[in-house]
Amino acid sequence: MAIVTIVGAGMMGSALVFPARHNKNTVRLVGTVLDDEIIDASVKTGRHPKFTVDFPDGVEYYHFSEFDKALHGSDFVICGVSSFGVDWFAQAVLPKLGKIPVLSVTKGMLDLPDGTLLTYPEYWNSVCPEAEICAIGGACTSYELVAEDPTVVAYCGKNRDTLQMMRKCMETDYYYITLTEDIRGVEASVALKNAYAFGVTLTIGINEKMRGEGAKQHYNSQAAAFAQGSKEMRSLVRYLGGNDDSIDVGIGDLFVTVFSGRTRLIGTLLGRGVSLPDALKQLEGITLESNVVSERVGRALRKQAADGRINMEDYPMMDLVYGILTENKKAEMPWKSFAGR
Amino acid sequence: MAIVTIVGAGMMGSALVFPARHNKNTVRLVGTVLDDEIIDASVKTGRHPKFTVDFPDGVEYYHFSEFDKALHGSDFVICGVSSFGVDWFAQAVLPKLGKIPVLSVTKGMLDLPDGTLLTYPEYWNSVCPEAEICAIGGACTSYELVAEDPTVVAYCGKNRDTLQMMRKCMETDYYYITLTEDIRGVEASVALKNAYAFGVTLTIGINEKMRGEGAKQHYNSQAAAFAQGSKEMRSLVRYLGGNDDSIDVGIGDLFVTVFSGRTRLIGTLLGRGVSLPDALKQLEGITLESNVVSERVGRALRKQAADGRINMEDYPMMDLVYGILTENKKAEMPWKSFAGR
Repeated sequence: MAIVTIVGAGMMGSALVFPARHNKNTVRLVGTVLDDEIIDASVKTGRHPKFTVDFPDGVEYYHFSEFDKALHGSDFVICGVSSFGVDWFAQAVLPKLGKIPVLSVTKGMLDLPDGTLLTYPEYWNSVCPEAEICAIGGACTSYELVAEDPTVVAYCGKNRDTLQMMRKCMETDYYYITLTEDIRGVEASVALKNAYAFGVTLTIGINEKMRGEGAKQHYNSQAAAFAQGSKEMRSLVRYLGGNDDSIDVGIGDLFVTVFSGRTRLIGTLLGRGVSLPDALKQLEGITLESNVVSERVGRALRKQAADGRINMEDYPMMDLVYGILTENKKAEMPWKSFAGR
Repeated sequence: MAIVTIVGAGMMGSALVFPARHNKNTVRLVGTVLDDEIIDASVKTGRHPKFTVDFPDGVEYYHFSEFDKALHGSDFVICGVSSFGVDWFAQAVLPKLGKIPVLSVTKGMLDLPDGTLLTYPEYWNSVCPEAEICAIGGACTSYELVAEDPTVVAYCGKNRDTLQMMRKCMETDYYYITLTEDIRGVEASVALKNAYAFGVTLTIGINEKMRGEGAKQHYNSQAAAFAQGSKEMRSLVRYLGGNDDSIDVGIGDLFVTVFSGRTRLIGTLLGRGVSLPDALKQLEGITLESNVVSERVGRALRKQAADGRINMEDYPMMDLVYGILTENKKAEMPWKSFAGR
């Protein structure tokens, strides 16, 4: 039994309480500076405000002001902040960790002005070289983890011993863990899937626009868009230096995000023809990782294409989602580009 | 405008009438020797008995007894028989074609006693070396094609000119076509997806067994199984000599088959714990390509593993579906094998 400190009381960080506590670890859920209300509500009710079941017994809850106490004796720290908290985590948390390793469930990438794309573990290590950053990717949404629907995820990191220690603490009979050293591949793959899930779910809205809201779903177009997403993800993950097994981790994550992630909401709205500002207004308060990563990756690829390093025609779906989010482009699937000539 | 002769009035063969006729080709739908009733019903009502919309105007219907007439002047023949009609097609149709090329939409593989797996085009060419066989793979179910839900499919064949002629006849604004010479990869990929769709949809039934029929669907387990299917398909298609783009064709086909194919019915039933004989009884009259291909591929891989050519542990999901169909194995997902150690 270990001491697991989770930073970030959003849905995913909070969901990881369940397998961690299932294995009788000491589990300390620490809110970020934005999570005080969630922590207060959890202390009061024993339940996360967005979950439909109670937290397991014996979880310890902390405001971030008590972080030093929550860190004391910890075997590892789970980073459960959103993309918007990545810098905060670098400044407020990483410097305090010393030799305590991190297991990050934050999904996304950063782009530099020259078009370079960095995974979050790489970014954190650029800021804090001594930090040991492992990360989680794969087919796992918070709702479903809480519901104990079985899945397999990948933990990636440089040090096999650390990964094995984390797996021992976290693996349950509904949360299986595969280990890999391919941080770049796993993290690129599961970041990209948010952009591609957005692309795939546009077809749901487009279908509704044609046939009326609530009409029977159609799957040919979803599936063809999924195949295109798979193709572009494979190409990008390889280009970024990741390996093929990590692409499958992303494919599983893409699948679950299409069906039960928050990305489906925005993709469906924009597919219906709702304008971006109206869609964002309707979804106020929901963290849309898809938009963050689509803008960053789209911008980076456009820059790389301008420099002749890649051909943007190889990524028509990424080009589409970037165009929709930044250039007011219409949500129409470029099927002919997907088919190629 | 061309003359397109479709042999096989099952659902997929009949669905291809729609894009073919959309482009004003002369379209001749020829029933196999088992399809006389469907042809009679189509002549009488203008609709396929299993479709909810009428055939387009101007389609010509033929019993197989009139095949010579239906073939006269034809630019190409679409083969729309099921796996059970592959030998019949080799004997009754191929010898009559001369230089008329075939476009096959039949999905599946055959295994030889030494564990060799053959795609149907390869098998037909072994029987009839002079036949020119092209084939269709990708995210396209018959229901959805008839509903004009947009998609992209792949046409594969050795001769680019033939493929371009077929595409010109068949491509519409809801049915886009990509061309490839990788017959082996496309055909293996879209055959294998029937086995893996069976594997993925087991999780739907398993979830219902745990939570009650009609319970809310859960997607973590579906997605993790999908990722495993993707991984095994990739490995097998490569092992069989196919290329990576063809794997994505199979991924799209896997996706659509999980959601709107017939395979979902048997996978869900067996996942619930219904015995194989009871499930087959419930689904009497439905062509289950998944069972055919799972048995053949599973048997071939076991043979190859026994000969030391592959490691069966690399294919735990194929091993599971084979075991369920031939060895009365329980429908339980081997998550730990998927995660690996």
